[in-house]
Amino acid sequence: MSAFATDPVANLQTLIRCPSVTPAEGGALSALAAMLEPLGFTVSRVMAEEEGTPDIENLYARHGASGPHLMFAGHTDVVPVGDEAAWSHPPFAAAIAGNMLYGRGAVDMKGGIACFVAAVARVIEKNGALPGSLSFLITGDEEGPAINGTIKLLQWAAEKGERWDACLVGEPTNPDRLGDMIKIGRRGSLSGLLTVHGVQGHAAYPHLADNPVRGIIKLTEALMHPAFDGGTENFQPSNLEVTTIDVGNAATNVIPAKATAKFNIRFNDSWTVETLRAEILRRLEKAAADETLRPGRQPIRYDIQWSDRPSHVFLTRSAALIESLSGAITRITGRTPELSTTGGTSDARYIKDYCPVVEFGLVGQTMHMVDECVAVADLEKLTEIYQAFIEDWFRHAGL
Amino acid sequence: MSAFATDPVANLQTLIRCPSVTPAEGGALSALAAMLEPLGFTVSRVMAEEEGTPDIENLYARHGASGPHLMFAGHTDVVPVGDEAAWSHPPFAAAIAGNMLYGRGAVDMKGGIACFVAAVARVIEKNGALPGSLSFLITGDEEGPAINGTIKLLQWAAEKGERWDACLVGEPTNPDRLGDMIKIGRRGSLSGLLTVHGVQGHAAYPHLADNPVRGIIKLTEALMHPAFDGGTENFQPSNLEVTTIDVGNAATNVIPAKATAKFNIRFNDSWTVETLRAEILRRLEKAAADETLRPGRQPIRYDIQWSDRPSHVFLTRSAALIESLSGAITRITGRTPELSTTGGTSDARYIKDYCPVVEFGLVGQTMHMVDECVAVADLEKLTEIYQAFIEDWFRHAGL
Ligand SMILES: [Zn+2]
Ligand SMILES: [Zn+2]
Repeated sequence: MSAFATDPVANLQTLIRCPSVTPAEGGALSALAAMLEPLGFTVSRVMAEEEGTPDIENLYARHGASGPHLMFAGHTDVVPVGDEAAWSHPPFAAAIAGNMLYGRGAVDMKGGIACFVAAVARVIEKNGALPGSLSFLITGDEEGPAINGTIKLLQWAAEKGERWDACLVGEPTNPDRLGDMIKIGRRGSLSGLLTVHGVQGHAAYPHLADNPVRGIIKLTEALMHPAFDGGTENFQPSNLEVTTIDVGNAATNVIPAKATAKFNIRFNDSWTVETLRAEILRRLEKAAADETLRPGRQPIRYDIQWSDRPSHVFLTRSAALIESLSGAITRITGRTPELSTTGGTSDARYIKDYCPVVEFGLVGQTMHMVDECVAVADLEKLTEIYQAFIEDWFRHAGL
Repeated sequence: MSAFATDPVANLQTLIRCPSVTPAEGGALSALAAMLEPLGFTVSRVMAEEEGTPDIENLYARHGASGPHLMFAGHTDVVPVGDEAAWSHPPFAAAIAGNMLYGRGAVDMKGGIACFVAAVARVIEKNGALPGSLSFLITGDEEGPAINGTIKLLQWAAEKGERWDACLVGEPTNPDRLGDMIKIGRRGSLSGLLTVHGVQGHAAYPHLADNPVRGIIKLTEALMHPAFDGGTENFQPSNLEVTTIDVGNAATNVIPAKATAKFNIRFNDSWTVETLRAEILRRLEKAAADETLRPGRQPIRYDIQWSDRPSHVFLTRSAALIESLSGAITRITGRTPELSTTGGTSDARYIKDYCPVVEFGLVGQTMHMVDECVAVADLEKLTEIYQAFIEDWFRHAGL
């Protein structure tokens, strides 16, 4: 057996057996450091803290001093196990049964880390060195508030002078089969809290009251229709969901004083956070002043509170990065991956401010679920894809 | 000073000083009995109880054995005092200051009872008898759940063979000045709880979810528009208020599984409870199946739960009753009262199943508020109106 961590299955079993449910480090970063140090990585453990959130341990490890510089990014923290009794195999045992490896984090995303470590180990074992630099940027706060995670780790590294030419995030990106999908960008996400102020009163005397439920329905309708756009070359149509409406009025005969709604919009590259906020305000203003549903009434009185941290939309345009990854996937799996921008946000939204970033990992079907598991064969295949990608990318980047 | 309770101010002070906040009797029915017995009334104290509600004391008192038979109906219970420190005068002190008499129940509706007792006392004092029968039907459960009040008291009396020719309810009916308004009917009231069932999911993957907020907005809009009717000869247009919408989803990124809305409709004599329910179901069914806002989607899944006790609409058509009251008001105040069916429901909705019923009392402006109060002059005037009404009504009814 190699002294290097070339076996993704062994790597993953080691990582799963560290119960690193956010915010606990659980030994996972130490285990990762123990795999990287023999390969010649310089490992830094970076503590991040902020009032009101748990302290978080993160890890940054670099191999090599010259360019080009490739980053692999991800997280060792995992979501809670849920109903532990419902698991077929203990969630931190990393049991293998019927060609599947079971455990919390198997696909999201200790599996991706395990494979990338194995791929790097194989490249170094094969060539004795790397044709440039390679870094691991691994957080313990991706599944939690994400305040003490990737953002701070990137800042910490950048302040130390670290610069990267490209990044691969190892999140599970494939809906069904390994090789289905690369993420080459992400929609933005913007949330808001809308409050409509009315005048409380008795349901039998509506003319003495002003029911804010009418207002909240009118304004949320204006947010939902018409559609914001029809989609763009690389993105789905933007979509707004009203995720809750709340009044909390227990009295049947009382017209309430206030109604609130929260909404979340996933938006494409037709918009920026700023233009989208302006469009939303325009819709609200117009609907609030529309008298057709409120003859003789004052405009609807409302206010809006934007969520603190919107996600900006981004699209990665590095052909070298996308083609190296896509080509490696096709060579190993025979599939041509879809270049997608669908789904939720990920830490790639922070990394894109530093270098081009793509995402590719395992099949996500069981992520966050009871009996999270990965096909053992996929671990070997993903390792081969990652190895081919690393070799290809350095070849392209070094030219 | 008369041995009879001919002074409405003294009667009212006695009643206010009994702290009869629902469900407490507080001595108020005993005080009333002590006014009625010297006048020759046979007083029955009727206890009503039902599991899950407080036991309630009620009172029925009859004078005379022959017809015609006039009923006066009302309640001695009062709503809580609210912020007692905010009262200018203690709520159960019945203080007179600046020509106003202060206290909880001053207008709603110990004042009405005090005046009617004084009016009856004056008639009996003047004539030595009544040209028929007169009864007081007084509950201690009008402001509470109203389960152990007027309904049960009417049943109790009817089972004992009591029959009435007409009823006056002494609730405060005047918006601004004594003589403004008689209530000759009431709109019905129907409430429902609407639940829309969706499919929970992540806001970034709306096609895998089904947001019930869209459904609840669509269905409540269908309830609100178009208007149910344009009003009738004696009634305002029917009006529906959505009194609450609730989802209770705290997670910005999650599409919820369920949304609920409650509504209350005040309806006129274009409708019965049954035809209105059918119309509401028709609107919901049509909106749920409408694909325009949900292309390719299944119909909205919803259910509706009707409130237990709808109020039926009614209109009193006894010319003798309305004209006796209206004429008395005009003679004493110089005003022609509006014959109205506006406002909330009252116990008149139960009485109308036994005999024609109208409502007239004091000015309601301060009812249920801090510093509830009545003009002392209004108490004397209302007593005179009630006396003239009693004399007129018996004259008409005896013909
Ligand atoms: Zn993840
Ligand atoms: Zn009342």
